[in-house]
Amino acid sequence: MTKYDKKDYLKFNMKSIVSKLSPPQLIMIVFFILIIIGTALLMLPVSSSGPHSVTFLDALFTATSAICVNGLVVVDTGLTYSTFGQGIIMILIQIGGLGFMTLGVIIAIVLGKRIGLKQRLIIQQTTHSNSSSGLVKLCLYIACIAFVFEAVAVCVLTTRWMAELGLKDAFFHASFYSISAFNNAGFSIWSDSLSEFIDDPVVNLTIMGLFISGGLGYIVIVEIFRKRNWKKLTLHSKIVLVSSGALLLTGFLLIYALESMNPDTFGQLTWSERLWSGWFQSATARSAGFNTIDINSMLSSSQLVLILLMFIGASSGGTGGGIKTTTFFVLLLATFTTFRGGGQIHAFERKIPSETIMRALAVVISSLSFVFLVALLLTVTEGIHEEHFMEVLFEATSAFSTAGLSMGLTSELSSVGKCIVIVTMFIGRLGPLTLAYALAKKKRKSKLGYAEDQVLIG
Amino acid sequence: MTKYDKKDYLKFNMKSIVSKLSPPQLIMIVFFILIIIGTALLMLPVSSSGPHSVTFLDALFTATSAICVNGLVVVDTGLTYSTFGQGIIMILIQIGGLGFMTLGVIIAIVLGKRIGLKQRLIIQQTTHSNSSSGLVKLCLYIACIAFVFEAVAVCVLTTRWMAELGLKDAFFHASFYSISAFNNAGFSIWSDSLSEFIDDPVVNLTIMGLFISGGLGYIVIVEIFRKRNWKKLTLHSKIVLVSSGALLLTGFLLIYALESMNPDTFGQLTWSERLWSGWFQSATARSAGFNTIDINSMLSSSQLVLILLMFIGASSGGTGGGIKTTTFFVLLLATFTTFRGGGQIHAFERKIPSETIMRALAVVISSLSFVFLVALLLTVTEGIHEEHFMEVLFEATSAFSTAGLSMGLTSELSSVGKCIVIVTMFIGRLGPLTLAYALAKKKRKSKLGYAEDQVLIG
Ligand SMILES: [K+]
Ligand SMILES: [K+]
Repeated sequence: MTKYDKKDYLKFNMKSIVSKLSPPQLIMIVFFILIIIGTALLMLPVSSSGPHSVTFLDALFTATSAICVNGLVVVDTGLTYSTFGQGIIMILIQIGGLGFMTLGVIIAIVLGKRIGLKQRLIIQQTTHSNSSSGLVKLCLYIACIAFVFEAVAVCVLTTRWMAELGLKDAFFHASFYSISAFNNAGFSIWSDSLSEFIDDPVVNLTIMGLFISGGLGYIVIVEIFRKRNWKKLTLHSKIVLVSSGALLLTGFLLIYALESMNPDTFGQLTWSERLWSGWFQSATARSAGFNTIDINSMLSSSQLVLILLMFIGASSGGTGGGIKTTTFFVLLLATFTTFRGGGQIHAFERKIPSETIMRALAVVISSLSFVFLVALLLTVTEGIHEEHFMEVLFEATSAFSTAGLSMGLTSELSSVGKCIVIVTMFIGRLGPLTLAYALAKKKRKSKLGYAEDQVLIG
Repeated sequence: MTKYDKKDYLKFNMKSIVSKLSPPQLIMIVFFILIIIGTALLMLPVSSSGPHSVTFLDALFTATSAICVNGLVVVDTGLTYSTFGQGIIMILIQIGGLGFMTLGVIIAIVLGKRIGLKQRLIIQQTTHSNSSSGLVKLCLYIACIAFVFEAVAVCVLTTRWMAELGLKDAFFHASFYSISAFNNAGFSIWSDSLSEFIDDPVVNLTIMGLFISGGLGYIVIVEIFRKRNWKKLTLHSKIVLVSSGALLLTGFLLIYALESMNPDTFGQLTWSERLWSGWFQSATARSAGFNTIDINSMLSSSQLVLILLMFIGASSGGTGGGIKTTTFFVLLLATFTTFRGGGQIHAFERKIPSETIMRALAVVISSLSFVFLVALLLTVTEGIHEEHFMEVLFEATSAFSTAGLSMGLTSELSSVGKCIVIVTMFIGRLGPLTLAYALAKKKRKSKLGYAEDQVLIG
């Protein structure tokens, strides 16, 4: 210790450790620390509405679910947590949602070259270091857009709820739901989510507007506002918009047709309630996680449709999860092209690079394997009999794709089950992102060029 | 009608119709006609063991299941059909199994160039016409191999069962089970399949030897017999052998570990019965369809493992179904390579062509979509509540992948449900094959070369 004193030495050491970590490792650690801080805050007596503090595992579950904008809950958010605790959850959601959106956009910038004029300009600044001015600027842009969307929604919802709840309470509820919706978190203070407002146009349109926008992602939102012309949009935005629209419509038609046969849901609803809830349930499955009809009362066929919609999820560079609409689109396109005899895989007069297709393949196969593994583990740890298998499949998909819908298994989980779901939420949220980041950075060239050989498929 | 008389005219017309059909269409029509003939024969009073003939729908179901070597049954084969009827089923299985094996090998020849010396020699003859001498030769080879395998098994099983059943009955049972096993049909005359022989080494080894060999396929069998040297095997055979072995072992370990916790199955078995049945259930799920323990008594976690094994299935150019071991291997390999930063996808020092990977992608995405659709349809038509969802998922996968295992739903199907399963068995068996054939024949070159554009994935 001749040249440095102890403080400098530690500082130097920390720096060298951080610089040795890969960006995905760094991201993982940052979010892990955020979850630990969130857990500690939620365990404070002041966070709890009752006489007892929330247990460590339940607080950890809530914090992970909030940071990962998942929305699965082991305890009722409205009843268990005080206003302070709910405020903490709100902040965790905002940090998580903005953090993931920003990360998604950074990866987009690193990966893509023609995503948009604005993005192209910041490329040089953002690819080099973690603290360049370009990155700060980007974060500010994203935060601004989120703030504008959320602020408008808070005004609308406060006005809507003022008469019933009073100004203060209406404002708090409006803030909580706006943040929860734009970030596709799906956390709710009311126990029945938004079932009370099943055919309320103001609540439906505001909440759906928020989570659909958040799900489309920053790049698409910015492009729509700047270009206002379909032809000028980038391939990414076109694919996101077309597949999101198609999924929304397909989901609505299927849920509407199937639930029309269900005396427990649509059987008790008016025409207007059916139409609103059909759209809402179709949209919410793709990562938002609110609901206006009881998921458990739905037909198993509708639940199967919800599982598919959750698995697909929202779009890259947004606040939603799942394998992403673009992945789904690219896979279907590649399949159709192969069926028609192969050749160039293209959409909207642009060729999709073969690397992109391989990435989509890797994402879907690893996601399927992961959901399968989680479902298998939960079946074992929760001692699930075949009668409850669908709940497990639903839960595993929901946890992985950050959808946050549940058929009721979450609140009945054993401690081991809770731990599995916590890890699933974490990996489900960070996995695809860090995978994409890893792929964007690393580019392995194989040294050996092997001779080709045929393998029979199918 | 100056030049031709009517008969010639009709003949000429038929010829021109046949020549206009694509090979996949022709295959579909031939198998459709075979199913109709089988149905008619099974509806004869003499085919039934009872006073009434089998109904049209049940006969159609049985004929389709037999021709498609599936093994799902709506009526008990041993109790409903007379010895004559069982003989018809046996013949249908043999025709179906050999037919599909031959088709698979022809596609292999058309697709592959370096699959084996023998195959390379017949290429020119088989690619041109449907009736060349090369094709006939190939069919004879395949029939010979099947006959040798089955004849040996018939001798072994007749000897094993002679004391209990008498020579005549033992021979009939041995013939039925040998044909059913080599062709991966899974049809059984005994109601409890092979549960009676749960730890009988002779029955276990003979039946498993037959269906595993049949599942490996003609090319692999021939290569093993001719080359007897791992290094000399083609890439296809290496991948088939490695992935079949790995799946067999993984399936055994999982089923053994999981069922050890089950008082209804392993809880009632001796050590030797557990070991034998662990291997048997792992092997049978990959398209054979026999069982030595009751599938319905197994834990839902084991049933989930069986669903995965059934979906993967056996190998191309064999008598089994599913997406095929090679498809599974190629997809996992492509995923791992992409995770590690991309580059050439290779195995055993050979590059896997990108076309092959696209074909694997197309097979898995279309198969997943199809099974999902069938499960959704059955959930609706059978009015399935969530408690019975696993049975539906199991049934849909089993029907698609020609596994033929059932948790019991088959015998409870409505008429519409039966029709759905019939169509699923047909498409599940013919779909991947004709897809492969169509791809082998057709080679579309796109005229337009679009510019590449980036899309975000994951
Ligand atoms: K969510
Ligand atoms: K079978």
